[in-house]
Amino acid sequence: MEITDLDGVFCNGIKEGKLGLGLVKFNGSIAGVFTGNRIKAAPVIVCQENIRKGYAKGLIVNSGNANAFTGEQGLEDAKEMCKIAGQLFGCRSDEVAIASTGVIGRKLDVEWIRKKAPEVYRDLGNSVEHAERFAKAIRTTDKFIKKAYSKTAKISALAKGAGMISPNLATMLCFVFTSAKFEGGELYEILKRAVKPLNRLTVDGDTSTNDTVLLIATGRERVNRDVFEEELERVFYNIAKQIAKDGEGATKVFEVFVRGAMSERSAEIAAKAVANSLLVKTAVFGCDPNWGRIIASLGYSGAEVDEKITVAFENEERTVVLVDRGKILENEDKAREIMKGDFRIIVDLHKGSFEDYAIGCDLSYEYVKINSEYTT
Amino acid sequence: MEITDLDGVFCNGIKEGKLGLGLVKFNGSIAGVFTGNRIKAAPVIVCQENIRKGYAKGLIVNSGNANAFTGEQGLEDAKEMCKIAGQLFGCRSDEVAIASTGVIGRKLDVEWIRKKAPEVYRDLGNSVEHAERFAKAIRTTDKFIKKAYSKTAKISALAKGAGMISPNLATMLCFVFTSAKFEGGELYEILKRAVKPLNRLTVDGDTSTNDTVLLIATGRERVNRDVFEEELERVFYNIAKQIAKDGEGATKVFEVFVRGAMSERSAEIAAKAVANSLLVKTAVFGCDPNWGRIIASLGYSGAEVDEKITVAFENEERTVVLVDRGKILENEDKAREIMKGDFRIIVDLHKGSFEDYAIGCDLSYEYVKINSEYTT
Repeated sequence: MEITDLDGVFCNGIKEGKLGLGLVKFNGSIAGVFTGNRIKAAPVIVCQENIRKGYAKGLIVNSGNANAFTGEQGLEDAKEMCKIAGQLFGCRSDEVAIASTGVIGRKLDVEWIRKKAPEVYRDLGNSVEHAERFAKAIRTTDKFIKKAYSKTAKISALAKGAGMISPNLATMLCFVFTSAKFEGGELYEILKRAVKPLNRLTVDGDTSTNDTVLLIATGRERVNRDVFEEELERVFYNIAKQIAKDGEGATKVFEVFVRGAMSERSAEIAAKAVANSLLVKTAVFGCDPNWGRIIASLGYSGAEVDEKITVAFENEERTVVLVDRGKILENEDKAREIMKGDFRIIVDLHKGSFEDYAIGCDLSYEYVKINSEYTT
Repeated sequence: MEITDLDGVFCNGIKEGKLGLGLVKFNGSIAGVFTGNRIKAAPVIVCQENIRKGYAKGLIVNSGNANAFTGEQGLEDAKEMCKIAGQLFGCRSDEVAIASTGVIGRKLDVEWIRKKAPEVYRDLGNSVEHAERFAKAIRTTDKFIKKAYSKTAKISALAKGAGMISPNLATMLCFVFTSAKFEGGELYEILKRAVKPLNRLTVDGDTSTNDTVLLIATGRERVNRDVFEEELERVFYNIAKQIAKDGEGATKVFEVFVRGAMSERSAEIAAKAVANSLLVKTAVFGCDPNWGRIIASLGYSGAEVDEKITVAFENEERTVVLVDRGKILENEDKAREIMKGDFRIIVDLHKGSFEDYAIGCDLSYEYVKINSEYTT
């Protein structure tokens, strides 16, 4: 297991059926970024408030119930969760960060949490196994836990996320711990910039009400800020790829690199349009090098494009150009081979010098199965 | 069959495997609206040019090849199709309207069209059977032909469309014939306004390179413009419902009515966000009254919303309110019954007095099957 440097970070979690509870005790600086959805879940509102002061002493996370669209009651319940955790951690309620994931619009079972929290607390520890237990407890439809680390920058990241994943976050919970020393404000600046890979990720274009990414720095070591920021972005990129890999029903991950765009914005919307296209996603699932769908999605993306586009597929071993500045090369057979595993779609718009990327996954029968049978 | 008033409109078509060819001979005013995709197929470019003068004498349509992303060659081929039709119709090439649908990025088999066109022409006729043969010839993945009419306004409409259907048109070809009399400019004004239902339709959020809607008026009768416009919008609404019904792999159609929005734009984007949400679409497929996904999609739609939302499901027989101004009513069991057939999602944002709607369909295993196996 790649998690490392959990110095000063004590985790544990349990899962009972669809319900899960995770606790993390620490003492450090904290910064967070949250969902762009206008309907924000109660825990998101409470967490934003609690971490405003730039430090926190612990974290409580539940899975199975998003505590979203739950009005005043939801806010009370989220605060109650913080209180329960605070009593165990020996700190104030408003020194506890919080996140929830699961079904929307159901009252939270606070009594279950009140009963389980002491059990979880009792076995807190800072081993890799403890971190793994926490990560397992906060899963919903995830098939595996997401984790990444940087030895250089003393970073460990744990995440959950599989559905409702869209550009600009999703029901993605991502908790990053570092023993590096940064104050709250600086930590937020770093986080805001480095979190980009998670904003380039799309599974189904649906943005959740609960997305939460927290960066917690226990401040035990000095790390150069530039190195830290670069390593943190790499960690997020790694997590983003894992979430796409576990995209509900996904059989493979594909990345879309767009270059030669007229502006930064153009590059971004072009890459996202391709990664989000249901027709592209199903073609990827079927190993069908139907690049016409890529061209069509570039065409409606809003980016400046004309027919002089280059499209290539690439994996670790080779690159197959399908369309070269609008000229069709009839390399479908070679492209089909590449599509059997994870691969990259490279697009050159030949319009300018901007580039960006998006990370997506294919759309399979399994996605439909998972999402037509999930809640009730 | 409901088609009527084909007075002066002579149709026929053939289909051989994936290739199809349809011809229509007439003499009348014409107006068109086309795809918003920046990569426009050659036939779209040629058709826009040819109908600019406000009248046309015929129409040629092929299926199986979109003649899109085909560069100069594609434009030549589209013009050649118009020439072939013009020679048969006894008119100039630029008096012929044209449309294509099918795979993107393949050279058109003009020789096949040249060989088949006289055969199709030989059996032109203005019976309902002839119109049906035309409609069948232009299908791709369509399971049935789309048709609608208005006796009052002397309108007959034929359409194809199943995939790549998105707000603001899609690989939807829709041809509307009327014996009413309107000049080209007026006809365009009428069409632009009445075509709204087709812009409220979404199957997969992908906008095609080939969308074409043509309104052809043979001018044999006088019809009041207001009546005509209203009836035409009803005809388009009818066609939109049929296209959604035949949405690739769709098992049912659902409409989303949003009212109480703060602005017209808000109402539109809110309705479309719900109809486009993969999570809503899969929940509809699974008869799962997971209204939380509706709330989440309203939240990220960009519309002004807060938790005081009302959500109800409705069919011809009854209305079930699930959430009343934010209060959850626990009517899931009744809602599940309604979801077994076509139904409406009614949303009241309680923010203002604007309303709009969107027409969508569910997302099933079959959609994935069709689109992962289509081209190659």
